[in-house]
Amino acid sequence: MAERAPKIRLYVDAPLRQGLEVETQTQAHYLVNVMRQSAGDRVELFNGEDGAWAAEILRAGKRAVSMRCVAKTSEQSMPPDLELLFAPIKKARTDFIVEKATELGVRSIRPVFTRFTNAERVRPEKLRAHCIEAAEQCGGTFVPDLRDAAPLDAVLSDWPEGRKLLFCDERMDAPDAAAALRNAGPGAWSILIGPEGGFSDEESARLRALPFATTVMLGPRVLRADTAAVAALTLWQSALGDW
Amino acid sequence: MAERAPKIRLYVDAPLRQGLEVETQTQAHYLVNVMRQSAGDRVELFNGEDGAWAAEILRAGKRAVSMRCVAKTSEQSMPPDLELLFAPIKKARTDFIVEKATELGVRSIRPVFTRFTNAERVRPEKLRAHCIEAAEQCGGTFVPDLRDAAPLDAVLSDWPEGRKLLFCDERMDAPDAAAALRNAGPGAWSILIGPEGGFSDEESARLRALPFATTVMLGPRVLRADTAAVAALTLWQSALGDW
Repeated sequence: MAERAPKIRLYVDAPLRQGLEVETQTQAHYLVNVMRQSAGDRVELFNGEDGAWAAEILRAGKRAVSMRCVAKTSEQSMPPDLELLFAPIKKARTDFIVEKATELGVRSIRPVFTRFTNAERVRPEKLRAHCIEAAEQCGGTFVPDLRDAAPLDAVLSDWPEGRKLLFCDERMDAPDAAAALRNAGPGAWSILIGPEGGFSDEESARLRALPFATTVMLGPRVLRADTAAVAALTLWQSALGDW
Repeated sequence: MAERAPKIRLYVDAPLRQGLEVETQTQAHYLVNVMRQSAGDRVELFNGEDGAWAAEILRAGKRAVSMRCVAKTSEQSMPPDLELLFAPIKKARTDFIVEKATELGVRSIRPVFTRFTNAERVRPEKLRAHCIEAAEQCGGTFVPDLRDAAPLDAVLSDWPEGRKLLFCDERMDAPDAAAALRNAGPGAWSILIGPEGGFSDEESARLRALPFATTVMLGPRVLRADTAAVAALTLWQSALGDW
């Protein structure tokens, strides 16, 4: 732990242990051509399970870079058991939601299709890449699990026992989020954020009646969906999470 | 107030009163060609001072559209006396900060140049346009004042009497923001967010020693500057603002 963490951080899908060698092909171009790394340079690796490791570059080729773990730089750290359920919106704003959720600290992210969702489709590989990039950037050791997109109705009908739901409704008649969260207390939580058009009256009524749901509003101004996602995650982390 | 607010919202730089005519040239293309509006259609106007007004289109030309105020749809509503001071970063993320600050509710926004700020310059007209678009979108009646960019040192040396400062340091040794804000109490506040590289040791030391500053951290993960801005504004609004 005395070792200072190298500045370049890479997520790898491989075990990390003292002395273990790791090879990357997908990040070789970035390491060698973009970041000008060569044999002897150090990078930080993490895989979401084994903490972060300083690794020395053994061979830096155009097609593959091999590295060896030399010292653990931080212990594995898991975010709270928090899930973000969000209705996909325009591409740049969806990317943004996924990036911000990773930084703010969630265990998993799941796109849900609601009545007014009009995004054509989600591209899980792209969203996963955004999660990884955000984790590399924010110094975390964990990449949120990107769950399969599903219709909201199906997600609610198959709700896990004991998990709580924060429903952020854009109707301006719900209680303040921070107080409601403190009242509802800690545990496993999901946060649900709707699309730009909000939730239908039917969806809102169903959600409000759920015994595991806490309905809140996020201030007196209508927030865009991406802003609402960041605001709700922030208030949850501050009231019940690891902030 | 019985009148339902029209869906198209426009900021105009003109007085708004019952029966008054307003002409716009800059938004004529948007209204006529993009939104297909014509004489008799209704839009909502606001100017940051006189509330929001349903206005009927009198003449819809390619170069100019004239409208007449027919009914007030909401009273003028001012955000709390909150200012965002932020170090300019990459263009898309700077635009994002300005948009989010407007939605979350600030009175003014000011770019500040810090030691590690490496944005070339700010474009006030563009940032102002983003503020206006965000206010139109979020249903507000107020557009934040975009103040002239200035060096951080000069801003601190010329600090207004009685105003408090929330200093969001990325060093992980400061108290939690929500509790610190509640302790410091309400009033006129500014929130300071640094650039991607954070604050220099010298800047951090100076800021921490200021009698009007409250230094906080925003959770255990390093947040990007744009995320930190949204998180800090959210926590301030929730603890001391109008949420």
